[in-house]
Amino acid sequence: VTEAEFIAALRQLPLHLAARGLNDDTALLDAGPLVVTTDTLVEGVHFLPTDPAQDVAWKLVATNLSDLAAKGANPEGVLLNYPLGDDSWDRAFLEGLADVLTTFDTKIIGGDTVTLPPNAPRVLTVTAFGSDAAAPARSGAREGDALYVTGTIGDAGAGLAIALGAHGPAELLAAYRRPQPRLADGRILAPHVHAMMDVSDGLLIDASRMALTSNLAISIDLARIPVSDAYRTFSGTRLAAATEGDDYQLLFAAPQDFVTDATLIGAFSTGSGLTLHDSGTPVPLPASLGYEHRPRG
Amino acid sequence: VTEAEFIAALRQLPLHLAARGLNDDTALLDAGPLVVTTDTLVEGVHFLPTDPAQDVAWKLVATNLSDLAAKGANPEGVLLNYPLGDDSWDRAFLEGLADVLTTFDTKIIGGDTVTLPPNAPRVLTVTAFGSDAAAPARSGAREGDALYVTGTIGDAGAGLAIALGAHGPAELLAAYRRPQPRLADGRILAPHVHAMMDVSDGLLIDASRMALTSNLAISIDLARIPVSDAYRTFSGTRLAAATEGDDYQLLFAAPQDFVTDATLIGAFSTGSGLTLHDSGTPVPLPASLGYEHRPRG
Repeated sequence: VTEAEFIAALRQLPLHLAARGLNDDTALLDAGPLVVTTDTLVEGVHFLPTDPAQDVAWKLVATNLSDLAAKGANPEGVLLNYPLGDDSWDRAFLEGLADVLTTFDTKIIGGDTVTLPPNAPRVLTVTAFGSDAAAPARSGAREGDALYVTGTIGDAGAGLAIALGAHGPAELLAAYRRPQPRLADGRILAPHVHAMMDVSDGLLIDASRMALTSNLAISIDLARIPVSDAYRTFSGTRLAAATEGDDYQLLFAAPQDFVTDATLIGAFSTGSGLTLHDSGTPVPLPASLGYEHRPRG
Repeated sequence: VTEAEFIAALRQLPLHLAARGLNDDTALLDAGPLVVTTDTLVEGVHFLPTDPAQDVAWKLVATNLSDLAAKGANPEGVLLNYPLGDDSWDRAFLEGLADVLTTFDTKIIGGDTVTLPPNAPRVLTVTAFGSDAAAPARSGAREGDALYVTGTIGDAGAGLAIALGAHGPAELLAAYRRPQPRLADGRILAPHVHAMMDVSDGLLIDASRMALTSNLAISIDLARIPVSDAYRTFSGTRLAAATEGDDYQLLFAAPQDFVTDATLIGAFSTGSGLTLHDSGTPVPLPASLGYEHRPRG
Protein backbone atom coordinates (compact mmCIF):
# COMPACT_ATOMS: atom_id res chain seq x y z
CA VAL A 1 0.00 0.00 0.00
CA THR A 2 1.14 3.62 -0.41
CA GLU A 3 2.15 5.81 2.48
CA ALA A 4 -1.11 7.77 2.14
CA GLU A 5 -3.18 4.58 2.20
CA PHE A 6 -1.23 3.26 5.18
CA ILE A 7 -1.74 6.47 7.15
CA ALA A 8 -5.43 6.50 6.19
CA ALA A 9 -5.68 2.96 7.57
CA LEU A 10 -3.92 4.01 10.80
CA ARG A 11 -6.51 6.79 11.18
CA GLN A 12 -9.19 4.08 11.35
CA LEU A 13 -7.45 2.57 14.41
CA PRO A 14 -7.80 4.01 17.90
CA LEU A 15 -5.88 7.32 17.74
CA HIS A 16 -4.40 8.98 20.78
CA LEU A 17 -5.28 12.66 21.24
CA ALA A 18 -1.52 13.31 21.13
CA ALA A 19 -1.50 12.15 17.50
CA ARG A 20 -3.47 15.22 16.39
CA GLY A 21 -5.15 13.14 13.69
CA LEU A 22 -1.74 12.10 12.25
CA ASN A 23 -1.70 15.47 10.46
CA ASP A 24 1.60 16.65 11.86
CA ASP A 25 5.26 15.68 12.06
CA THR A 26 5.13 15.44 15.83
CA ALA A 27 2.85 14.18 18.57
CA LEU A 28 2.05 16.17 21.69
CA LEU A 29 1.96 14.06 24.83
CA ASP A 30 0.53 15.57 27.98
CA ALA A 31 0.24 12.62 30.29
CA GLY A 32 2.40 13.38 33.32
CA PRO A 33 5.37 11.11 34.03
CA LEU A 34 5.78 8.55 31.25
CA VAL A 35 7.39 5.16 30.95
CA VAL A 36 8.99 4.87 27.52
CA THR A 37 10.26 1.73 25.83
CA THR A 38 11.24 0.79 22.29
CA ASP A 39 11.83 -2.51 20.52
CA THR A 40 12.91 -3.32 17.00
CA LEU A 41 12.01 -6.60 15.30
CA VAL A 42 14.04 -7.80 12.32
CA GLU A 43 12.79 -10.33 9.77
CA GLY A 44 14.97 -13.42 9.92
CA VAL A 45 16.24 -12.48 13.37
CA HIS A 46 13.28 -11.80 15.67
CA PHE A 47 10.58 -13.26 13.48
CA LEU A 48 10.45 -15.78 10.65
CA PRO A 49 9.80 -14.69 7.07
CA THR A 50 6.96 -17.25 7.17
CA ASP A 51 5.32 -15.80 10.30
CA PRO A 52 1.92 -14.30 9.40
CA ALA A 53 2.07 -10.49 9.19
CA GLN A 54 -0.88 -10.24 11.61
CA ASP A 55 1.21 -12.07 14.22
CA VAL A 56 4.28 -9.90 13.56
CA ALA A 57 2.16 -6.80 14.25
CA TRP A 58 0.83 -8.41 17.41
CA LYS A 59 4.28 -9.39 18.61
CA LEU A 60 5.82 -6.00 17.82
CA VAL A 61 3.28 -4.19 19.97
CA ALA A 62 2.97 -6.91 22.62
CA THR A 63 6.71 -7.04 23.31
CA ASN A 64 6.70 -3.32 24.01
CA LEU A 65 3.58 -3.56 26.18
CA SER A 66 5.34 -6.32 28.10
CA ASP A 67 8.07 -3.82 29.05
CA LEU A 68 5.34 -1.45 30.25
CA ALA A 69 3.74 -4.31 32.21
CA ALA A 70 7.02 -4.84 34.06
CA LYS A 71 6.77 -1.22 35.30
CA GLY A 72 3.10 -1.52 36.25
CA ALA A 73 2.25 1.09 33.62
CA ASN A 74 -1.01 1.73 31.83
CA PRO A 75 -0.44 1.74 28.02
CA GLU A 76 -1.05 5.18 26.54
CA GLY A 77 -0.07 4.50 22.97
CA VAL A 78 2.60 3.65 20.44
CA LEU A 79 4.76 5.14 17.72
CA LEU A 80 5.21 2.83 14.71
CA ASN A 81 8.18 2.90 12.31
CA TYR A 82 7.01 0.83 9.38
CA PRO A 83 8.64 -0.26 6.10
CA LEU A 84 6.00 -0.30 3.37
CA GLY A 85 6.21 -3.53 1.37
CA ASP A 86 3.80 -5.56 -0.66
CA ASP A 87 0.09 -4.86 -0.39
CA SER A 88 -1.03 -8.16 1.10
CA TRP A 89 1.60 -8.12 3.85
CA ASP A 90 0.84 -4.48 4.70
CA ARG A 91 -2.91 -5.13 4.90
CA ALA A 92 -2.43 -8.24 7.03
CA PHE A 93 -0.09 -6.25 9.30
CA LEU A 94 -2.76 -3.56 9.73
CA GLU A 95 -5.28 -6.27 10.72
CA GLY A 96 -2.95 -7.61 13.41
CA LEU A 97 -2.23 -4.06 14.55
CA ALA A 98 -5.95 -3.37 15.00
CA ASP A 99 -6.27 -6.63 16.98
CA VAL A 100 -3.44 -5.96 19.40
CA LEU A 101 -4.31 -2.30 19.95
CA THR A 102 -7.95 -2.99 20.75
CA THR A 103 -7.13 -6.07 22.86
CA PHE A 104 -4.82 -4.05 25.11
CA ASP A 105 -6.66 -0.70 24.84
CA THR A 106 -3.66 1.04 23.31
CA LYS A 107 -3.69 3.88 20.79
CA ILE A 108 -1.64 5.14 17.85
CA ILE A 109 0.41 8.23 18.71
CA GLY A 110 2.41 8.60 15.51
CA GLY A 111 5.32 7.13 13.59
CA ASP A 112 7.14 7.07 10.29
CA THR A 113 6.83 4.99 7.13
CA VAL A 114 9.77 4.21 4.87
CA THR A 115 10.51 2.22 1.74
CA LEU A 116 13.27 -0.41 1.86
CA PRO A 117 15.52 -1.38 -1.04
CA PRO A 118 14.35 -4.50 -2.93
CA ASN A 119 14.75 -7.79 -1.00
CA ALA A 120 15.84 -6.10 2.21
CA PRO A 121 14.57 -7.83 5.36
CA ARG A 122 11.80 -5.92 7.14
CA VAL A 123 12.89 -3.91 10.17
CA LEU A 124 10.02 -2.68 12.35
CA THR A 125 10.14 -0.51 15.44
CA VAL A 126 7.50 0.31 18.03
CA THR A 127 7.99 2.80 20.84
CA ALA A 128 5.41 2.52 23.62
CA PHE A 129 4.35 5.02 26.27
CA GLY A 130 2.78 4.15 29.59
CA SER A 131 1.38 6.25 32.42
CA ASP A 132 0.63 5.85 36.12
CA ALA A 133 3.58 3.55 36.66
CA ALA A 134 5.00 2.50 40.00
CA ALA A 135 8.04 1.62 37.85
CA PRO A 136 10.16 -0.74 39.95
CA ALA A 137 13.68 -0.80 38.53
CA ARG A 138 15.44 -3.89 37.27
CA SER A 139 18.16 -3.14 39.79
CA GLY A 140 16.20 -3.09 43.05
CA ALA A 141 16.52 -6.70 44.26
CA ARG A 142 17.67 -6.97 47.90
CA GLU A 143 19.71 -9.56 49.74
CA GLY A 144 17.37 -12.29 50.97
CA ASP A 145 14.69 -11.56 48.36
CA ALA A 146 13.14 -14.45 46.50
CA LEU A 147 12.85 -14.51 42.71
CA TYR A 148 9.36 -15.08 41.30
CA VAL A 149 7.96 -15.59 37.81
CA THR A 150 4.37 -15.31 36.58
CA GLY A 151 2.61 -17.90 34.41
CA THR A 152 4.55 -20.67 32.69
CA ILE A 153 7.92 -20.63 30.96
CA GLY A 154 9.09 -22.32 27.77
CA ASP A 155 5.83 -22.28 25.79
CA ALA A 156 7.05 -19.68 23.28
CA GLY A 157 10.36 -21.45 22.74
CA ALA A 158 8.49 -24.68 21.97
CA GLY A 159 6.17 -22.65 19.73
CA LEU A 160 9.17 -21.42 17.74
CA ALA A 161 10.25 -25.05 17.20
CA ILE A 162 6.72 -25.81 15.99
CA ALA A 163 6.79 -22.77 13.66
CA LEU A 164 10.02 -24.22 12.24
CA GLY A 165 8.37 -27.59 11.53
CA ALA A 166 8.21 -29.61 14.77
CA HIS A 167 4.90 -31.15 15.81
CA GLY A 168 3.22 -29.99 18.98
CA PRO A 169 0.16 -28.39 20.58
CA ALA A 170 -1.34 -25.36 18.81
CA GLU A 171 -1.36 -23.40 22.08
CA LEU A 172 2.46 -23.46 22.12
CA LEU A 173 2.57 -21.99 18.61
CA ALA A 174 0.09 -19.36 19.77
CA ALA A 175 2.32 -18.54 22.75
CA TYR A 176 5.17 -17.83 20.31
CA ARG A 177 3.11 -15.87 17.80
CA ARG A 178 0.70 -14.01 20.10
CA PRO A 179 2.43 -13.30 23.41
CA GLN A 180 0.20 -11.86 26.12
CA PRO A 181 1.80 -8.96 28.00
CA ARG A 182 0.99 -9.31 31.70
CA LEU A 183 -0.39 -5.81 32.10
CA ALA A 184 -2.91 -6.57 34.85
CA ASP A 185 -0.35 -8.57 36.87
CA GLY A 186 2.17 -5.78 36.42
CA ARG A 187 -0.16 -3.11 37.74
CA ILE A 188 -0.91 -5.21 40.83
CA LEU A 189 2.71 -6.21 41.49
CA ALA A 190 4.61 -3.03 40.64
CA PRO A 191 3.88 -0.99 43.79
CA HIS A 192 4.97 -3.86 46.06
CA VAL A 193 7.95 -5.65 44.50
CA HIS A 194 11.62 -4.61 44.80
CA ALA A 195 12.62 -5.20 41.17
CA MET A 196 10.76 -6.35 38.08
CA MET A 197 11.39 -7.02 34.38
CA ASP A 198 9.83 -9.12 31.67
CA VAL A 199 11.31 -12.40 30.43
CA SER A 200 12.13 -11.67 26.82
CA ASP A 201 15.53 -13.21 26.12
CA GLY A 202 15.27 -16.25 28.41
CA LEU A 203 14.66 -16.77 32.12
CA LEU A 204 18.29 -17.49 33.05
CA ILE A 205 19.82 -14.58 31.16
CA ASP A 206 17.16 -12.14 32.31
CA ALA A 207 17.46 -13.27 35.94
CA SER A 208 21.24 -12.89 35.65
CA ARG A 209 20.76 -9.33 34.43
CA MET A 210 18.51 -8.50 37.38
CA ALA A 211 21.10 -9.92 39.79
CA LEU A 212 23.96 -8.10 38.04
CA THR A 213 22.32 -4.65 38.12
CA SER A 214 21.25 -5.30 41.73
CA ASN A 215 24.84 -6.25 42.71
CA LEU A 216 23.71 -9.61 44.03
CA ALA A 217 24.07 -13.32 43.30
CA ILE A 218 21.05 -15.35 42.21
CA SER A 219 20.42 -19.06 42.72
CA ILE A 220 17.61 -20.69 40.71
CA ASP A 221 15.92 -24.05 41.37
CA LEU A 222 15.19 -25.66 37.99
CA ALA A 223 12.65 -28.00 39.60
CA ARG A 224 10.51 -25.00 40.52
CA ILE A 225 10.33 -23.46 37.07
CA PRO A 226 6.65 -23.51 36.13
CA VAL A 227 5.89 -25.25 32.82
CA SER A 228 2.53 -25.86 31.17
CA ASP A 229 0.85 -29.22 30.52
CA ALA A 230 1.21 -28.48 26.80
CA TYR A 231 4.95 -27.96 27.27
CA ARG A 232 5.20 -31.31 29.08
CA THR A 233 3.28 -32.96 26.21
CA PHE A 234 5.90 -31.45 23.89
CA SER A 235 8.56 -33.17 26.07
CA GLY A 236 10.36 -29.90 26.67
CA THR A 237 12.94 -29.86 29.47
CA ARG A 238 12.96 -27.27 32.26
CA LEU A 239 16.50 -26.27 31.29
CA ALA A 240 15.37 -25.61 27.71
CA ALA A 241 12.37 -23.65 29.03
CA ALA A 242 14.69 -21.51 31.16
CA THR A 243 16.97 -20.55 28.28
CA GLU A 244 14.45 -19.90 25.52
CA GLY A 245 13.05 -16.44 24.98
CA ASP A 246 9.81 -14.72 24.02
CA ASP A 247 7.82 -15.79 27.08
CA TYR A 248 6.98 -12.25 28.21
CA GLN A 249 6.18 -13.35 31.72
CA LEU A 250 7.12 -11.06 34.62
CA LEU A 251 10.19 -11.81 36.70
CA PHE A 252 10.39 -10.05 40.04
CA ALA A 253 12.21 -9.83 43.34
CA ALA A 254 10.23 -9.64 46.56
CA PRO A 255 10.51 -10.93 50.14
CA GLN A 256 10.37 -14.70 50.73
CA ASP A 257 6.93 -14.38 52.37
CA PHE A 258 5.43 -12.24 49.59
CA VAL A 259 1.86 -13.33 48.86
CA THR A 260 1.41 -13.90 45.13
CA ASP A 261 0.07 -16.28 42.48
CA ALA A 262 3.49 -16.19 40.83
CA THR A 263 5.96 -19.02 41.39
CA LEU A 264 8.98 -18.73 43.70
CA ILE A 265 11.94 -20.05 41.70
CA GLY A 266 15.10 -18.69 43.31
CA ALA A 267 16.83 -16.56 45.91
CA PHE A 268 19.13 -13.54 45.91
CA SER A 269 22.17 -13.39 48.14
CA THR A 270 25.36 -11.37 48.51
CA GLY A 271 27.97 -12.00 45.84
CA SER A 272 27.56 -12.16 42.12
CA GLY A 273 26.65 -14.54 39.33
CA LEU A 274 24.08 -17.22 38.67
CA THR A 275 23.98 -20.72 40.15
CA LEU A 276 21.51 -23.44 39.18
CA HIS A 277 20.27 -26.42 41.12
CA ASP A 278 17.57 -29.06 40.82
CA SER A 279 15.86 -29.35 44.22
CA GLY A 280 19.26 -28.84 45.83
CA THR A 281 21.47 -30.86 43.45
CA PRO A 282 23.89 -28.49 41.66
CA VAL A 283 23.36 -28.19 37.90
CA PRO A 284 26.13 -26.88 35.62
CA LEU A 285 25.28 -23.72 33.70
CA PRO A 286 24.39 -24.30 30.03
CA ALA A 287 26.61 -22.77 27.32
CA SER A 288 23.91 -20.22 26.51
CA LEU A 289 21.71 -18.60 29.16
CA GLY A 290 19.36 -17.15 26.55
CA TYR A 291 18.99 -15.07 23.48
CA GLU A 292 21.79 -12.62 22.72
CA HIS A 293 21.30 -11.22 19.23
CA ARG A 294 21.83 -14.45 17.35
CA PRO A 295 20.42 -14.32 13.80
CA ARG A 296 17.55 -16.78 13.56
CA GLY A 297 15.37 -18.32 10.84
CA VAL B 1 31.17 -3.87 18.36
CA THR B 2 29.07 -6.01 20.70
CA GLU B 3 25.82 -4.86 22.27
CA ALA B 4 27.56 -4.53 25.65
CA GLU B 5 30.37 -2.43 24.14
CA PHE B 6 27.86 -0.26 22.28
CA ILE B 7 25.82 0.38 25.42
CA ALA B 8 29.01 1.08 27.38
CA ALA B 9 29.90 3.67 24.71
CA LEU B 10 26.43 5.22 24.95
CA ARG B 11 26.94 5.56 28.72
CA GLN B 12 29.92 7.83 27.96
CA LEU B 13 27.59 10.21 26.07
CA PRO B 14 25.35 12.73 27.81
CA LEU B 15 22.69 10.55 29.48
CA HIS B 16 19.24 11.84 30.36
CA LEU B 17 18.12 11.20 33.94
CA ALA B 18 15.19 9.32 32.42
CA ALA B 19 17.63 6.74 31.05
CA ARG B 20 18.40 5.46 34.57
CA GLY B 21 21.95 4.71 33.48
CA LEU B 22 20.70 2.50 30.63
CA ASN B 23 20.26 -0.27 33.20
CA ASP B 24 16.61 -0.90 32.52
CA ASP B 25 14.23 -1.89 29.73
CA THR B 26 12.36 1.39 30.00
CA ALA B 27 13.02 5.08 30.47
CA LEU B 28 11.08 7.25 32.90
CA LEU B 29 10.31 10.70 31.51
CA ASP B 30 9.00 13.32 33.89
CA ALA B 31 9.12 16.48 31.84
CA GLY B 32 5.58 17.79 31.58
CA PRO B 33 3.99 18.02 28.15
CA LEU B 34 6.27 16.51 25.52
CA VAL B 35 6.68 16.86 21.78
CA VAL B 36 7.51 13.46 20.32
CA THR B 37 8.81 12.71 16.84
CA THR B 38 10.43 9.72 15.16
CA ASP B 39 12.34 9.25 11.92
CA THR B 40 13.81 6.17 10.31
CA LEU B 41 16.75 6.36 7.89
CA VAL B 42 17.42 3.49 5.48
CA GLU B 43 20.76 2.85 3.81
CA GLY B 44 20.37 3.23 0.07
CA VAL B 45 17.15 5.21 0.51
CA HIS B 46 17.76 8.10 2.91
CA PHE B 47 21.53 7.94 2.97
CA LEU B 48 24.21 6.60 0.68
CA PRO B 49 26.20 3.47 1.56
CA THR B 50 29.27 5.68 1.02
CA ASP B 51 28.15 8.43 3.43
CA PRO B 52 30.50 8.52 6.43
CA ALA B 53 28.93 6.86 9.49
CA GLN B 54 29.65 9.98 11.55
CA ASP B 55 27.45 11.97 9.17
CA VAL B 56 24.69 9.35 9.22
CA ALA B 57 24.57 9.65 13.01
CA TRP B 58 24.48 13.42 12.73
CA LYS B 59 21.70 13.35 10.16
CA LEU B 60 19.62 10.78 12.04
CA VAL B 61 19.54 12.95 15.16
CA ALA B 62 19.44 16.30 13.33
CA THR B 63 16.38 15.37 11.24
CA ASN B 64 14.48 14.56 14.41
CA LEU B 65 15.66 17.73 16.15
CA SER B 66 14.46 19.65 13.10
CA ASP B 67 10.92 18.38 13.76
CA LEU B 68 11.28 19.60 17.35
CA ALA B 69 12.54 22.96 16.06
CA ALA B 70 9.35 23.35 14.01
CA LYS B 71 7.38 23.11 17.27
CA GLY B 72 9.64 25.53 19.14
CA ALA B 73 10.63 22.72 21.49
CA ASN B 74 13.71 22.34 23.63
CA PRO B 75 15.38 18.94 22.94
CA GLU B 76 15.22 16.67 25.98
CA GLY B 77 16.74 13.56 24.50
CA VAL B 78 16.54 10.68 22.07
CA LEU B 79 15.86 6.97 21.85
CA LEU B 80 18.13 5.15 19.39
CA ASN B 81 17.25 1.90 17.57
CA TYR B 82 20.58 0.73 16.20
CA PRO B 83 21.62 -2.26 14.06
CA LEU B 84 25.05 -3.42 15.19
CA GLY B 85 27.33 -3.96 12.21
CA ASP B 86 31.04 -3.88 11.61
CA ASP B 87 33.30 -2.40 14.25
CA SER B 88 34.66 0.53 12.29
CA TRP B 89 31.22 1.71 11.16
CA ASP B 90 29.81 1.38 14.69
CA ARG B 91 32.70 3.32 16.22
CA ALA B 92 32.45 6.06 13.59
CA PHE B 93 28.70 6.24 14.20
CA LEU B 94 29.29 6.69 17.93
CA GLU B 95 31.70 9.56 17.17
CA GLY B 96 29.10 11.35 15.08
CA LEU B 97 26.48 10.66 17.71
CA ALA B 98 28.63 12.31 20.38
CA ASP B 99 29.13 15.31 18.06
CA VAL B 100 25.48 15.90 17.32
CA LEU B 101 24.30 15.33 20.88
CA THR B 102 26.79 17.76 22.38
CA THR B 103 26.31 20.34 19.59
CA PHE B 104 22.56 20.50 20.23
CA ASP B 105 22.67 19.79 23.98
CA THR B 106 20.61 16.61 23.64
CA LYS B 107 20.84 13.47 25.76
CA ILE B 108 20.42 9.72 25.38
CA ILE B 109 17.19 8.42 26.91
CA GLY B 110 17.34 4.79 25.77
CA GLY B 111 16.87 2.57 22.76
CA ASP B 112 17.39 -0.90 21.39
CA THR B 113 20.21 -2.62 19.52
CA VAL B 114 19.64 -5.43 17.03
CA THR B 115 21.63 -7.58 14.65
CA LEU B 116 20.64 -7.64 10.97
CA PRO B 117 20.99 -10.63 8.65
CA PRO B 118 24.17 -10.53 6.50
CA ASN B 119 24.18 -7.87 3.74
CA ALA B 120 20.92 -6.28 4.89
CA PRO B 121 20.84 -2.49 4.46
CA ARG B 122 21.09 -0.58 7.73
CA VAL B 123 17.81 0.73 9.14
CA LEU B 124 18.21 3.27 11.95
CA THR B 125 15.52 4.97 14.00
CA VAL B 126 15.67 7.90 16.37
CA THR B 127 12.75 9.10 18.46
CA ALA B 128 13.22 12.59 19.92
CA PHE B 129 11.52 14.28 22.85
CA GLY B 130 11.20 18.02 23.33
CA SER B 131 9.79 20.14 26.12
CA ASP B 132 8.48 23.68 26.60
CA ALA B 133 6.98 23.79 23.12
CA ALA B 134 4.54 26.37 21.82
CA ALA B 135 3.87 23.66 19.20
CA PRO B 136 2.17 25.43 16.29
CA ALA B 137 0.39 22.82 14.16
CA ARG B 138 1.10 22.22 10.49
CA SER B 139 -2.59 22.91 9.88
CA GLY B 140 -2.96 26.40 11.35
CA ALA B 141 -2.36 28.64 8.28
CA ARG B 142 -5.07 31.30 7.82
CA GLU B 143 -6.50 32.97 4.73
CA GLY B 144 -4.35 35.97 3.89
CA ASP B 145 -1.26 34.63 5.70
CA ALA B 146 2.09 34.80 3.97
CA LEU B 147 4.40 31.78 3.68
CA TYR B 148 7.94 32.26 4.99
CA VAL B 149 11.06 30.13 4.96
CA THR B 150 14.24 30.47 7.05
CA GLY B 151 17.78 30.38 5.62
CA THR B 152 18.45 29.19 2.09
CA ILE B 153 16.94 26.33 0.10
CA GLY B 154 18.54 23.84 -2.29
CA ASP B 155 21.96 23.52 -0.65
CA ALA B 156 21.37 19.96 0.57
CA GLY B 157 19.99 18.81 -2.78
CA ALA B 158 23.11 20.14 -4.51
CA GLY B 159 25.17 18.48 -1.78
CA LEU B 160 23.58 15.13 -2.60
CA ALA B 161 24.58 15.59 -6.26
CA ILE B 162 28.12 16.33 -5.07
CA ALA B 163 28.11 13.23 -2.83
CA LEU B 164 27.13 11.26 -5.95
CA GLY B 165 30.10 12.62 -7.92
CA ALA B 166 29.28 16.14 -9.18
CA HIS B 167 31.78 18.93 -8.54
CA GLY B 168 30.77 21.82 -6.31
CA PRO B 169 31.48 23.81 -3.15
CA ALA B 170 32.26 21.83 0.01
CA GLU B 171 29.69 23.82 1.97
CA LEU B 172 26.91 22.29 -0.16
CA LEU B 173 28.14 18.78 0.63
CA ALA B 174 28.21 19.78 4.30
CA ALA B 175 24.63 21.04 4.05
CA TYR B 176 23.60 17.58 2.83
CA ARG B 177 25.66 15.60 5.33
CA ARG B 178 25.39 17.78 8.44
CA PRO B 179 22.03 19.56 8.41
CA GLN B 180 21.58 22.19 11.12
CA PRO B 181 18.19 22.01 12.83
CA ARG B 182 16.89 25.57 13.35
CA LEU B 183 16.23 25.13 17.06
CA ALA B 184 16.87 28.74 18.10
CA ASP B 185 14.73 30.11 15.25
CA GLY B 186 12.00 27.65 16.12
CA ARG B 187 11.86 28.70 19.77
CA ILE B 188 11.59 32.37 18.75
CA LEU B 189 9.00 31.81 16.02
CA ALA B 190 6.76 29.12 17.52
CA PRO B 191 4.74 31.28 19.93
CA HIS B 192 3.90 33.81 17.18
CA VAL B 193 3.30 31.95 13.90
CA HIS B 194 0.03 30.30 12.80
CA ALA B 195 1.54 27.11 11.35
CA MET B 196 5.06 25.72 11.12
CA MET B 197 6.90 22.64 9.82
CA ASP B 198 10.39 21.82 8.65
CA VAL B 199 11.36 21.42 5.00
CA SER B 200 12.43 17.80 4.80
CA ASP B 201 10.97 16.41 1.56
CA GLY B 202 11.16 19.57 -0.57
CA LEU B 203 9.79 23.10 -0.29
CA LEU B 204 6.94 22.66 -2.78
CA ILE B 205 5.66 19.36 -1.42
CA ASP B 206 5.96 20.48 2.19
CA ALA B 207 4.23 23.82 1.47
CA SER B 208 1.47 21.87 -0.32
CA ARG B 209 1.01 19.72 2.76
CA MET B 210 0.70 22.78 4.99
CA ALA B 211 -1.92 24.26 2.64
CA LEU B 212 -3.80 20.94 2.40
CA THR B 213 -4.08 20.39 6.15
CA SER B 214 -5.02 24.07 6.59
CA ASN B 215 -7.76 23.77 3.93
CA LEU B 216 -6.26 26.60 1.90
CA ALA B 217 -4.59 27.25 -1.45
CA ILE B 218 -0.96 28.33 -1.58
CA SER B 219 0.78 30.41 -4.25
CA ILE B 220 4.59 30.51 -4.28
CA ASP B 221 6.85 33.01 -6.05
CA LEU B 222 9.90 31.11 -7.35
CA ALA B 223 11.83 34.37 -7.71
CA ARG B 224 11.64 34.89 -3.94
CA ILE B 225 13.01 31.49 -2.94
CA PRO B 226 16.23 32.24 -1.06
CA VAL B 227 19.31 30.47 -2.43
CA SER B 228 22.91 30.70 -1.26
CA ASP B 229 25.86 32.11 -3.17
CA ALA B 230 27.33 28.60 -3.14
CA TYR B 231 24.15 27.24 -4.72
CA ARG B 232 24.36 29.91 -7.45
CA THR B 233 28.01 28.92 -8.05
CA PHE B 234 26.77 25.36 -8.48
CA SER B 235 24.33 26.72 -11.14
CA GLY B 236 21.33 25.25 -9.38
CA THR B 237 17.92 26.53 -10.46
CA ARG B 238 15.32 27.86 -8.04
CA LEU B 239 12.85 25.23 -9.25
CA ALA B 240 15.35 22.46 -8.46
CA ALA B 241 15.99 24.05 -5.05
CA ALA B 242 12.26 24.08 -4.35
CA THR B 243 11.78 20.38 -5.08
CA GLU B 244 14.85 18.87 -3.45
CA GLY B 245 14.74 17.68 0.14
CA ASP B 246 16.92 17.57 3.23
CA ASP B 247 17.12 21.35 3.77
CA TYR B 248 15.67 21.29 7.29
CA GLN B 249 14.77 24.96 7.18
CA LEU B 250 11.56 26.11 8.85
CA LEU B 251 8.50 26.87 6.76
CA PHE B 252 5.79 28.90 8.45
CA ALA B 253 2.55 30.80 7.98
CA ALA B 254 2.17 34.23 9.56
CA PRO B 255 0.55 37.58 8.72
CA GLN B 256 1.91 39.54 5.71
CA ASP B 257 3.37 42.18 8.05
CA PHE B 258 5.11 39.69 10.35
CA VAL B 259 8.55 40.98 11.35
CA THR B 260 11.15 38.27 10.71
CA ASP B 261 14.56 37.50 9.23
CA ALA B 262 12.93 34.71 7.23
CA THR B 263 11.99 35.20 3.57
CA LEU B 264 8.40 35.79 2.41
CA ILE B 265 7.89 33.41 -0.53
CA GLY B 266 4.15 32.95 -0.95
CA ALA B 267 0.59 33.61 0.13
CA PHE B 268 -2.33 31.52 1.37
CA SER B 269 -5.84 32.09 0.03
CA THR B 270 -9.20 30.33 0.00
CA GLY B 271 -9.37 27.29 -2.23
CA SER B 272 -6.96 24.39 -2.52
CA GLY B 273 -3.80 23.34 -4.30
CA LEU B 274 -0.44 24.87 -5.17
CA THR B 275 0.27 27.44 -7.86
CA LEU B 276 3.71 28.66 -8.86
CA HIS B 277 4.79 31.92 -10.44
CA ASP B 278 8.01 33.78 -11.18
CA SER B 279 7.52 37.41 -10.12
CA GLY B 280 3.95 37.19 -11.42
CA THR B 281 4.47 35.06 -14.54
CA PRO B 282 2.72 31.69 -14.11
CA VAL B 283 5.04 28.67 -13.94
CA PRO B 284 3.72 25.13 -14.61
CA LEU B 285 4.09 22.68 -11.73
CA PRO B 286 6.98 20.22 -12.10
CA ALA B 287 6.21 16.49 -12.33
CA SER B 288 7.57 15.95 -8.82
CA LEU B 289 7.05 18.44 -5.98
CA GLY B 290 9.58 16.69 -3.76
CA TYR B 291 10.66 13.49 -2.13
CA GLU B 292 8.02 10.79 -1.69
CA HIS B 293 9.71 7.56 -0.65
CA ARG B 294 11.71 7.02 -3.80
CA PRO B 295 14.64 4.62 -3.29
CA ARG B 296 17.87 6.52 -3.76
CA GLY B 297 21.58 5.75 -4.08
